[in-house]
Amino acid sequence: MPLSSHRQFEPALAFAAASVERTLDSLLPSGNEGEARLFDAMRYSCLGGGKRLRAFFALASATLFRVAPLPALRTASAIELVHAYSLIHDDLPAMDDDDLRRGKPSCHKQFDEATAILAGDALQALAFEVLAHEDTHGDPAVRAALIVELAKASGAHGMVGGQMLDLLAEARGDEMSIGAITRLQRMKTGALISFACTAGAILGKASDHSRAALAGYAHDLGLAFQIADDLLDIEGNVVDLGKTPGKDVEAGKATFVSILGVERARTQAGLLARQAAAHLESFGEAADLLRQAANFVVARRT
Amino acid sequence: MPLSSHRQFEPALAFAAASVERTLDSLLPSGNEGEARLFDAMRYSCLGGGKRLRAFFALASATLFRVAPLPALRTASAIELVHAYSLIHDDLPAMDDDDLRRGKPSCHKQFDEATAILAGDALQALAFEVLAHEDTHGDPAVRAALIVELAKASGAHGMVGGQMLDLLAEARGDEMSIGAITRLQRMKTGALISFACTAGAILGKASDHSRAALAGYAHDLGLAFQIADDLLDIEGNVVDLGKTPGKDVEAGKATFVSILGVERARTQAGLLARQAAAHLESFGEAADLLRQAANFVVARRT
Repeated sequence: MPLSSHRQFEPALAFAAASVERTLDSLLPSGNEGEARLFDAMRYSCLGGGKRLRAFFALASATLFRVAPLPALRTASAIELVHAYSLIHDDLPAMDDDDLRRGKPSCHKQFDEATAILAGDALQALAFEVLAHEDTHGDPAVRAALIVELAKASGAHGMVGGQMLDLLAEARGDEMSIGAITRLQRMKTGALISFACTAGAILGKASDHSRAALAGYAHDLGLAFQIADDLLDIEGNVVDLGKTPGKDVEAGKATFVSILGVERARTQAGLLARQAAAHLESFGEAADLLRQAANFVVARRT
Repeated sequence: MPLSSHRQFEPALAFAAASVERTLDSLLPSGNEGEARLFDAMRYSCLGGGKRLRAFFALASATLFRVAPLPALRTASAIELVHAYSLIHDDLPAMDDDDLRRGKPSCHKQFDEATAILAGDALQALAFEVLAHEDTHGDPAVRAALIVELAKASGAHGMVGGQMLDLLAEARGDEMSIGAITRLQRMKTGALISFACTAGAILGKASDHSRAALAGYAHDLGLAFQIADDLLDIEGNVVDLGKTPGKDVEAGKATFVSILGVERARTQAGLLARQAAAHLESFGEAADLLRQAANFVVARRT
């Protein structure tokens, strides 16, 4: 049963999560060699948790262009590998110093710092290996395009650059403008979400118009997602979140919520979600799951 | 003037180093954005130092198959980006805890730990972005093949796995067999050197026979290189090396030298270097630089 046979978002997300979990399980290394500790840390941080929203976006965008299941699942898995590596490294004591992730001890608490650094490094390499492998697409030009876009989204001008900005802003402790926070978040979380939302268009060799529509959707949705995340940091609890809430406030970190206030932030998130969905008009009913996803992102409790 | 116009190894190595330095300079991000600290750390760790042996191997193997300069230089640069990221992460306090690298403060001493972790992460992403870009080869299947091989060489079954084994062996402090050390070093340093030596064959779409010959060369040369490194850790000084010598002995680490003794290790390195060169017979005079490189690797003082 493909993702496209689902009509409702929540079962579709659960289906996507289970499918990508199986794919990740088959892609991650395992064994009894001396370096098994590394494999264990990689599997610990990639399997058995997470909403898999990024994977969902990749799979849902792929269904718009009738991409076969295996290429879509491998691409979704590569994105989850990068996401997992970034969480491992962000949780390190030298970075956000977080002991809890997805309701479990973070990787460096469960193993140790060196193992966590190495597990993150190996997961990044694996993500690119997965995309470059011929099982991901018969046309190597498509594989190369996916790799260029994932590298840009996750590198110095994307996710990693955004994390750098975040750490620097926290160290300075100064007021950030809404523009500066928006740029930071577009890099830190938005870039990878955008890649997930447009990956299906790359896999399906979609028209520039279709790809631009999905990029517009991702652009607004990514910000809505981040504002919702900031709201959850204020309103969430540790059991639902599986990570420590209140950390941003405690750190005196400028967030959308600290600048806009709770009510305006919530209004803004809702507005962005509707704006995101509006980009999908040309896809008709086929994009219903992505429309529902936009609502989910701002209404979620975890 | 291409590398192939050089007849002597040392000027050829200097030429390769200068060429790849210029290419890296053009590939690395720079600017005055908020995240410039990240760019600075990436440039600090990639530019202005290192023997560039891996780059040389990539360029020298590319000349065997008349690969154009730009593809060869971009591939060599991608390998140096991965090498640089691995040195940044290996030097971190949680790993080898080294304050000195290439005669300068290591990245986390010059900047800070968080910046060093992020710089390494962004360099890895950049390496794959460079390889995937169409400037690296007109045939995307070649780019995809380079990416698969670099990811394997640097990931959990290669460089990162080898570093894990090394840390675990040090923590246990037990005696390692020569077989176990050989496996560790083939992963930790040998795999990336092997990729460098065979990258030219991938770029040049060389025959399986040619690629296997280069793989054989790399296999023996990589071990010779590591034994020479272990000898330098005993016999080198901090000014020549630009890093702290004696660290392995101090850490009670099992190395080729601690097991074989200085004399047998030196003999073994020489034997492996000659054995490496013997793989190159079918290339005739065209492989003279690679033959000289094998001698250099065991005779070097830094």
